[in-house]
Amino acid sequence: MFDTAIIGTGPAGLSAAITLKLHEKSVIWFGSPQMSLKVEKSEKIANYPGVGLISGAELNKRFQDHAAEMGLEPVDKMVTAIMFMNDHYSILADNELYEAKTVLLATGVVSAKGVPGETEYLGRGVSYCATCDGFLYKGKKIAVICGPQRYEHEVAYLAELAEKVYCFATYKDVGPLPENVEMIGPVREITGGMKVASIKLNDGSDLAVDGVFCLRNAVAPSTLLPGLELNGPHIVVDREQKTNLAGCFAAGDCTGRPYQLTKSVGEGNVAAHTIIDYLSESQTK
Amino acid sequence: MFDTAIIGTGPAGLSAAITLKLHEKSVIWFGSPQMSLKVEKSEKIANYPGVGLISGAELNKRFQDHAAEMGLEPVDKMVTAIMFMNDHYSILADNELYEAKTVLLATGVVSAKGVPGETEYLGRGVSYCATCDGFLYKGKKIAVICGPQRYEHEVAYLAELAEKVYCFATYKDVGPLPENVEMIGPVREITGGMKVASIKLNDGSDLAVDGVFCLRNAVAPSTLLPGLELNGPHIVVDREQKTNLAGCFAAGDCTGRPYQLTKSVGEGNVAAHTIIDYLSESQTK
Repeated sequence: MFDTAIIGTGPAGLSAAITLKLHEKSVIWFGSPQMSLKVEKSEKIANYPGVGLISGAELNKRFQDHAAEMGLEPVDKMVTAIMFMNDHYSILADNELYEAKTVLLATGVVSAKGVPGETEYLGRGVSYCATCDGFLYKGKKIAVICGPQRYEHEVAYLAELAEKVYCFATYKDVGPLPENVEMIGPVREITGGMKVASIKLNDGSDLAVDGVFCLRNAVAPSTLLPGLELNGPHIVVDREQKTNLAGCFAAGDCTGRPYQLTKSVGEGNVAAHTIIDYLSESQTK
Repeated sequence: MFDTAIIGTGPAGLSAAITLKLHEKSVIWFGSPQMSLKVEKSEKIANYPGVGLISGAELNKRFQDHAAEMGLEPVDKMVTAIMFMNDHYSILADNELYEAKTVLLATGVVSAKGVPGETEYLGRGVSYCATCDGFLYKGKKIAVICGPQRYEHEVAYLAELAEKVYCFATYKDVGPLPENVEMIGPVREITGGMKVASIKLNDGSDLAVDGVFCLRNAVAPSTLLPGLELNGPHIVVDREQKTNLAGCFAAGDCTGRPYQLTKSVGEGNVAAHTIIDYLSESQTK
């Protein structure tokens, strides 16, 4: 069992990972080895004290270097569900189960709550992981909501398995995809009975499908960890970065505005210290 | 009238100054051009994300460079009193008065609440500024509570004016001082009638004095700005860095643990954004 599972490799997750590692806590850190896509894509960052004017790509490179220097390696798996087990958490990442005494959510802002029906049909036709669940849809019809572009190769992978793929991309300039992929407009709702049966598009039309894949950078917190107190799209935390669930903490953009990397590193640092205190209190109980 | 007065040139003050400047707010920034003495004296800092392992002196140098790059120049004056004027603040620094719509306290942790009697006799024999008030004590007897060592030259300056100086230093290795300076032990209390008359030492003895100078890096927040809600030595703030006084914000070590520069830059950034919102709301009123 790990001391802490950190979900997210943006500035908040990195900041917490560094400080927890310095305090010799055992950490499993989920996210992309590329660190922060959001920082990477920022043209210029001027307000990270001591760093001066810097391109996002250069700063993200320094984040990667700092992690490497500390021997911190993110596990490149998508966390799709977290279960609160009273004295610890179980974390499902690409269909593998991990256990940790504490969890730090540093997932960034996940736009919207997903598509209506998404949470209800999760595990009953809705999936977040092509690699994990693709095999269930051999020869069948599926829909994919894809964005950002880095998940396009998973659409292609699903197209190899499924007979037909309806794909809604949340970005422009969609690359070449197999012939059995049909691009569609925004999905208004996922519908069905016990299982997913169809999707309704914004134009009112229905398409019969056996499953829906939502390929995104992150899962909305309400879906990720049921019972978590939210305020709109944000996770409610106190000044120590505690959420309403014992042993669960949050830091960075997922806790609210301003969406600033300097705020995120600060919150990651505070969360790490609160986690250290929490672990030492749990030990003495 | 300035948009904001920032008190303190540590990581929190710097972070706020940079972001406010980028948003074209008019800022007066009080503190040392040396920036953070605390960072300067740190041997190694390992957990400032993206910076890697760095000496405190080198990081503080980068802080200075970043400020210079942004055209931010601290005003090297000691703020000794702040007055809440309902719709703005008056700030007394080395006996000059400044006005600002908002105030950001980024003063670091000030150990203890000062000496009993200090707040009561402020302006009636107690002073925080040798340059401002030294002339009042020509040929008289005074006591000085001095620490850190950088204020030692002010003790020497006071000794030129006063007949006799009793000096309690809060650090070791006190340098050579003029002959009329007598080193004493800790001061337990400042006493008198309408004005300061004597100090009581920890050993129970009394020394008659006309004035007491407290030469410190910062004034305790309770003395600096009466009415400010505190929790022990810390200023109470919410997640937006708001204090209990409208238009007054706080960030960094002065708001509580962990005393970490990464937390401080984050809070400075959040405070700057809250100040920007506050200023734009005040404008539309």
